[in-house]
Amino acid sequence: MSINPFNHPANEIFSVPVRVSRESRPDMTIVSVNGVEIGGTEVVVIAGPCAVESSEQLYETARAVKNGGARILRGGAFKPRSSPYNFQGLGEEGLKMLSDISRETGLPVVTEVMDTRQVETVYKYADMMQVGSRNMHNYPLLKEVGMLRKPVLLKRGMMATIAEFLLAAEYILNQGNEQVVLCERGIRTFENSTRNTLDLSAVPMLKRLCHLPVIVDPSHGTGLRWMVPSMAKAAVAAGADGLIMEVHHKPEEALCDGQQSLYPDEFAQLMTDLKKIALAVSREISLPQPFDK
Amino acid sequence: MSINPFNHPANEIFSVPVRVSRESRPDMTIVSVNGVEIGGTEVVVIAGPCAVESSEQLYETARAVKNGGARILRGGAFKPRSSPYNFQGLGEEGLKMLSDISRETGLPVVTEVMDTRQVETVYKYADMMQVGSRNMHNYPLLKEVGMLRKPVLLKRGMMATIAEFLLAAEYILNQGNEQVVLCERGIRTFENSTRNTLDLSAVPMLKRLCHLPVIVDPSHGTGLRWMVPSMAKAAVAAGADGLIMEVHHKPEEALCDGQQSLYPDEFAQLMTDLKKIALAVSREISLPQPFDK
Amino acid sequence: MSINPFNHPANEIFSVPVRVSRESRPDMTIVSVNGVEIGGTEVVVIAGPCAVESSEQLYETARAVKNGGARILRGGAFKPRSSPYNFQGLGEEGLKMLSDISRETGLPVVTEVMDTRQVETVYKYADMMQVGSRNMHNYPLLKEVGMLRKPVLLKRGMMATIAEFLLAAEYILNQGNEQVVLCERGIRTFENSTRNTLDLSAVPMLKRLCHLPVIVDPSHGTGLRWMVPSMAKAAVAAGADGLIMEVHHKPEEALCDGQQSLYPDEFAQLMTDLKKIALAVSREISLPQPFDK
Amino acid sequence: MSINPFNHPANEIFSVPVRVSRESRPDMTIVSVNGVEIGGTEVVVIAGPCAVESSEQLYETARAVKNGGARILRGGAFKPRSSPYNFQGLGEEGLKMLSDISRETGLPVVTEVMDTRQVETVYKYADMMQVGSRNMHNYPLLKEVGMLRKPVLLKRGMMATIAEFLLAAEYILNQGNEQVVLCERGIRTFENSTRNTLDLSAVPMLKRLCHLPVIVDPSHGTGLRWMVPSMAKAAVAAGADGLIMEVHHKPEEALCDGQQSLYPDEFAQLMTDLKKIALAVSREISLPQPFDK
Repeated sequence: MSINPFNHPANEIFSVPVRVSRESRPDMTIVSVNGVEIGGTEVVVIAGPCAVESSEQLYETARAVKNGGARILRGGAFKPRSSPYNFQGLGEEGLKMLSDISRETGLPVVTEVMDTRQVETVYKYADMMQVGSRNMHNYPLLKEVGMLRKPVLLKRGMMATIAEFLLAAEYILNQGNEQVVLCERGIRTFENSTRNTLDLSAVPMLKRLCHLPVIVDPSHGTGLRWMVPSMAKAAVAAGADGLIMEVHHKPEEALCDGQQSLYPDEFAQLMTDLKKIALAVSREISLPQPFDK
Repeated sequence: MSINPFNHPANEIFSVPVRVSRESRPDMTIVSVNGVEIGGTEVVVIAGPCAVESSEQLYETARAVKNGGARILRGGAFKPRSSPYNFQGLGEEGLKMLSDISRETGLPVVTEVMDTRQVETVYKYADMMQVGSRNMHNYPLLKEVGMLRKPVLLKRGMMATIAEFLLAAEYILNQGNEQVVLCERGIRTFENSTRNTLDLSAVPMLKRLCHLPVIVDPSHGTGLRWMVPSMAKAAVAAGADGLIMEVHHKPEEALCDGQQSLYPDEFAQLMTDLKKIALAVSREISLPQPFDK
Repeated sequence: MSINPFNHPANEIFSVPVRVSRESRPDMTIVSVNGVEIGGTEVVVIAGPCAVESSEQLYETARAVKNGGARILRGGAFKPRSSPYNFQGLGEEGLKMLSDISRETGLPVVTEVMDTRQVETVYKYADMMQVGSRNMHNYPLLKEVGMLRKPVLLKRGMMATIAEFLLAAEYILNQGNEQVVLCERGIRTFENSTRNTLDLSAVPMLKRLCHLPVIVDPSHGTGLRWMVPSMAKAAVAAGADGLIMEVHHKPEEALCDGQQSLYPDEFAQLMTDLKKIALAVSREISLPQPFDK
Repeated sequence: MSINPFNHPANEIFSVPVRVSRESRPDMTIVSVNGVEIGGTEVVVIAGPCAVESSEQLYETARAVKNGGARILRGGAFKPRSSPYNFQGLGEEGLKMLSDISRETGLPVVTEVMDTRQVETVYKYADMMQVGSRNMHNYPLLKEVGMLRKPVLLKRGMMATIAEFLLAAEYILNQGNEQVVLCERGIRTFENSTRNTLDLSAVPMLKRLCHLPVIVDPSHGTGLRWMVPSMAKAAVAAGADGLIMEVHHKPEEALCDGQQSLYPDEFAQLMTDLKKIALAVSREISLPQPFDK
């Protein structure tokens, strides 16, 4: 009843590259970020501001997320911004602040690296290096972080297929660095009521195909503060090994992405709610370890 | 004719049509399908085969889903198929089977109506009329079901924005029928490892904007049997008022969508798991009420 | 180097259904709309208002497009509108106006049919029946127009793949009606500076795979009056057998889609420009046949 | 910092950044690539292999495209490949070959730069530096090429909106380099019969909004050799200032993208056809200037 007139470029056999493939090794990888293990029973929450703006901002926010139960601090020093006229980040000064606050709070830090020339510097200050969505296809950068021995947080490109995402991770593993965490952060679709469309089906798909831990970013995935809790809960229910969320001590004053940043008290409430979901799927979220009483 | 409840991150002045708008009425709507209430505390599960194929198939599957805890039976008698050479459904004969099995099992039935000329017939046999994804923009059909007094399950078009989805519901309410349940069932994106991309952010978005119950279809949303449980759990965690899932007593023999239909034992296990998630978000899933012991 | 862990739902072998397939017949189909042939050497231009609003509006616009060189008049009497509160068309009254103006001007008319119950009525008044983008997946409607012996203008669904578009045409041919013209009218993508993304690669693709004529709608494809001429020229260069464009004698007063409707003088200028492109690809556009001097 | 030249149908207040905005300067920019002017009356054709593979391959292909009428030679020495196991390019050795062949043939060369650390090297050998689709969001790279005084070919990201594309160009101009050519090369959509969806409406849109020349890449835009001529013609009809196309002297032996590369004789025929389209839109394509007789 049908005729197939030519070979199509699109209908490739979907295949999982060998080093990230779950078939290539018996166990799931656990990534250790200065002692915090991602990929085990615990659902690990990474939280902090979009961008490092000042010592005070970073300190206040770090204290709040630690008190809420976060295990790792996030914050950008080099920011990829669509417009050259937007705040571009504090650069190395911001990295120093992150490192200082990490020592004070005991929280390991993850921060983005955008340029092969920055890798050495970021390596020096951070506990985990983030390759952002806009750089998932930046192969020289992937190779560079692959040559180091420090965990990498690799975010899915906003228009990358699952197949391409796995290939990007393969670039890193192929250089010898196997400490890679994958992060679903929303893809670009026709829908415009949310900033991106958070593709939670990526969580079970990636965990079936590969052995790396998978976390979810509901802040960029939705772009809407009030929606973050619902999607964070859904991500944990779908099997995510962790979450990365934007929190700011004063979102309305944030230099970047304030409209998607949680207030500290919203974050604390969300952590309580997430704990229940984690238990319902036989996972754990550690109790808050108050930094100061 | 419309209300703009808040500023949207999307650039548009996003406005919610008046009859579906949450601002237009104090309480959320509860839709009663022959006594089964959707939109209350209970998370209502609708299950059954993609298509009605035979009395035996329907009976076996209905028994299985009832034993697992489903509250409503689904099954298609008129099937919208991409190819004219695929099985098109049993038509009115299938409707009669649905009606018979409904009486035997006590499960209300929902089934799709594709043509304005079929509405009267489907109305006669079904407890709830489904307008499928391919017909969400079929305005004459929306008006027709809007003139009746029987619940409607309205599925989101696979490329419909949230704004268009709400307008489609408005067509129904505008004719006087307010018993409408909205269903997210996956949207079409560039990603091709899943059949569609299940947009779970639609759940909190729709529940914020409108007063109608919102359910999720993880079967069409993923197209993959093994992925249905993860996404079903995520949907409940995101706040869905219910789920609609494909179950077949022998999926490998199904005439339609066998690869996304759960086996009865998988369905029963999933219901147990969903109950835990429901409790974690302060909802309930009713205990299975075994049909036969 | 790679592993293929499971069969994928997405990677089907792309196949062209048999009745529309170019391999199934030696020659390309020519569709005759009351004597105007689409699919031959001539590039046929269909023009007119989005909606029939009044006798005067229709007459003025019809005269203008005929004077500009259009061969067929378009105009909607039944309008599929996203909102129930927008102008829904004049219905049968509009069909009568179309039929009257057709007699006066000698232009055959094409108009949309949205409902299986309207098919008989539209058949009576129109020379060509249009199945619109929102109804490309409306299989009962496709079957209904397939049972008649009158040309059909089938518009691509705004989210339909080429494969699905061909299957929709197959539904019509499978009922015995082979007088089908395919129309690319823009698909839905993430890009939002245009109303849709006009996929001109659909023209060579469809013409390679199937024997039916292919035309392009740059009005809906762009949503922007000023952009229509560029894309109309591009469509002819890409090999389109015709164009369908919105023209209104007073676009700023149009009840529907005024912002994408050409002014009569713009249309006349465009026809002159299109004639040059047509010649450059060894096609023709007939000289204007002035209706009144 | 920005100008809003007209109201957009898209919901956003679409604003064009100041340095690329057409309102910011009276005339359109002409970019001179070692004497070949892009943005004037002539439609400039850039052609050559996807990747530089060997001196012989490059020489044979360069000769063929020059004989066909190409004005600039393309060829990649650093290749961004989805898989780490695919051919990654010859690196600096490839750049030397390009430079040598450029001298022999008199064709200026354009080649891709992927890494900020390579910019100086590529600058030394190339007449024009290409920032590829995967790097359109690579802001450090944009800044780096912005600080040099050599023309840049900036390809649209496969998921970048027009607004983001203009902002990426603004990054380059903001550093002082105004010799930028924009290139539409296909966007990612749900359609999978072509490699990408060539968005030709980007041509009139970009030319209306900004003063930079706009060219089109029908090779990557379609991924299909047989479709390249149709879309090349459409691009010129839509108003493109040039084309960039892949040609290989033996496509079936190509290490990269052979299925979308034209044979030399197809390219020569296409150039003849393009000349007719160019004339029809009051543009020119220079006669072939045979390299050898």
